[in-house]
Amino acid sequence: MRSLLKENFFTLRTVMWDEEGEVRMIDQTALPTRFVYRSFDSWEGVADAIRTMVVRGAPAIGVAAAMGVALAAHSSKARSKEPLLRDVQRAAAGLRKTRPTAVNLFWGIDRVVRTAESAGDDVVAIREAVTREVVKMADEDVEANRRLGRFGAPLLDDGDVVMTQCNAGALATVGYGTALGVVRAAREMGKCIKVVVPETRPALQGARLTAFELSRDGFDCTLISDTAVGFVMSSGRVNKVVVGADRITKDGNVFNKIGTYQMAVLAHRHGVPFYPAAPRSTFDLSRTYDQVEIEERSFDEVVKVRGRRIAPAGVGVFNPAFDRTPPELVSAIVSDKGVIKSPVAKNLALIIRS
Amino acid sequence: MRSLLKENFFTLRTVMWDEEGEVRMIDQTALPTRFVYRSFDSWEGVADAIRTMVVRGAPAIGVAAAMGVALAAHSSKARSKEPLLRDVQRAAAGLRKTRPTAVNLFWGIDRVVRTAESAGDDVVAIREAVTREVVKMADEDVEANRRLGRFGAPLLDDGDVVMTQCNAGALATVGYGTALGVVRAAREMGKCIKVVVPETRPALQGARLTAFELSRDGFDCTLISDTAVGFVMSSGRVNKVVVGADRITKDGNVFNKIGTYQMAVLAHRHGVPFYPAAPRSTFDLSRTYDQVEIEERSFDEVVKVRGRRIAPAGVGVFNPAFDRTPPELVSAIVSDKGVIKSPVAKNLALIIRS
Repeated sequence: MRSLLKENFFTLRTVMWDEEGEVRMIDQTALPTRFVYRSFDSWEGVADAIRTMVVRGAPAIGVAAAMGVALAAHSSKARSKEPLLRDVQRAAAGLRKTRPTAVNLFWGIDRVVRTAESAGDDVVAIREAVTREVVKMADEDVEANRRLGRFGAPLLDDGDVVMTQCNAGALATVGYGTALGVVRAAREMGKCIKVVVPETRPALQGARLTAFELSRDGFDCTLISDTAVGFVMSSGRVNKVVVGADRITKDGNVFNKIGTYQMAVLAHRHGVPFYPAAPRSTFDLSRTYDQVEIEERSFDEVVKVRGRRIAPAGVGVFNPAFDRTPPELVSAIVSDKGVIKSPVAKNLALIIRS
Repeated sequence: MRSLLKENFFTLRTVMWDEEGEVRMIDQTALPTRFVYRSFDSWEGVADAIRTMVVRGAPAIGVAAAMGVALAAHSSKARSKEPLLRDVQRAAAGLRKTRPTAVNLFWGIDRVVRTAESAGDDVVAIREAVTREVVKMADEDVEANRRLGRFGAPLLDDGDVVMTQCNAGALATVGYGTALGVVRAAREMGKCIKVVVPETRPALQGARLTAFELSRDGFDCTLISDTAVGFVMSSGRVNKVVVGADRITKDGNVFNKIGTYQMAVLAHRHGVPFYPAAPRSTFDLSRTYDQVEIEERSFDEVVKVRGRRIAPAGVGVFNPAFDRTPPELVSAIVSDKGVIKSPVAKNLALIIRS
């Protein structure tokens, strides 16, 4: 195994199908204090990893879930197509229940199920086909992010200070990142870009993951509390916002990590452009915003921080994991098909379907 | 000592001058896990308690700082007025340097210094005068908050869900509270009021103090992450905002705990009335907003939570402790002199000077 401490996120992969036919993922719950990979040999293990956020980030969980389905095809004892597909479908159903908001999860699962269904009748051939498909999906994710980054980079100017939310970096994808992919691509074009990152409670992906990933790759990164977003905007300390997305519906609404909506409102008030960045697999052209479920997560995420209790017993908790930013607050959406300009609701389908 | 566990915050005092001539304060850094009082017999100890937020909240630190000055008068070895006043002035100067934003600190210090200066020439009489003054200031704070509460309570309707920020409760004052004083007074009038409280990073006063104080006093209180403020507003889950203040300048700008400004912007967008609540001692009629220093606190507050590291080494931090809400976002200010209606910049001086 290569020394992880020397790697940067231009080359590392968050999720991979390894030579032994297992799924390997960086354990994101252990960051930033420990940087370790974990291996999974069952779809149930992958489902659990998605639920508990060992792997998170819409593009990453899309590929991880697909690999979970592939594991089910491999571990199935079936000797003919029909029972094999039943095992695959059972895994797909279980994986679909892990998290409701990011559409990439469903996209990834559906894609590998279709591959299994259409790969002929031989179980060995089906297993080989799903393996090829998930390896291809992982490669495609990195390529899509690089393409997306190249489309988005011209939106950033040399010397810009970019605010992001949560982690939409290499760690949220197979590699390179979406929002942070745009930042990386701008740097590759020779621009100096600084990043301001709110810690992003409750799960602290900004503090634990984005600050980790960016520091490691040599970016100038400033961590703030989530409460300081408004002050930072109003005092002119940032001039662009670039965030990821968990689902973008056909009406141009952007579902992303909780806190994104308020950042968009503040950006709008202060004339700061607000750019979500997402690959094709994050767009849900079959739904409008009112058909999307916003996940609510556990009480414990709010009353504890890294295992330490911060609130008294007896208090109630409301813990939505995502929020919705309406299209009127979106300056443009960066996709791997190109930049979707405002009004995004009108321009979105044209570019994404192209 | 009375059993603290049975007390509620209608009767408890956050800061007091005890029979032994010491200053006793609830140690707010230990909450919500431990509920203890600490005693201080020197102004340096009080200054340290203010700096480290053993005591916090603008009205509470105003009285605590005044008591610190009184301790200096008592512990001074001076046998005549002039050297006694020199010791008092030295303590006053030291206490003024503890925190820059809340104006109550300067108000409290100035008031007890003036008392010492004008109490005649006898050092015993001066010491008695400052003791009487600080005990009176503590009583006046509770009375001002009760009055403020009665003025503000009619702004709340039976069944309202109120969002607050940080802690502007009994723990931020000598007793009863400012923002939470309004909520308490509304309940005393027979109204059912629920409260939503963001945890208020970095120091977590919402989670640690407001949730503690409200749960203890039997209020329905829901804790959210700071990132969820926008979602909670946009989904219609709150219908009033009531916050405290650390300084309100003559132009109607409200300086309060970081995160207040973004809450006000979101309240404005969603048509939710936004009410700061503060006693006379929080108003700074001699300054405009651009003459106020916003305190920046330590790196550690952001990269650690209750001692546990949440961010990687090497990341930069920006940690402003307060922000400014401009008057156009303020629906009305609740004071102990009455409700200051919008436009607050115009109506403020008239009511506060009355």
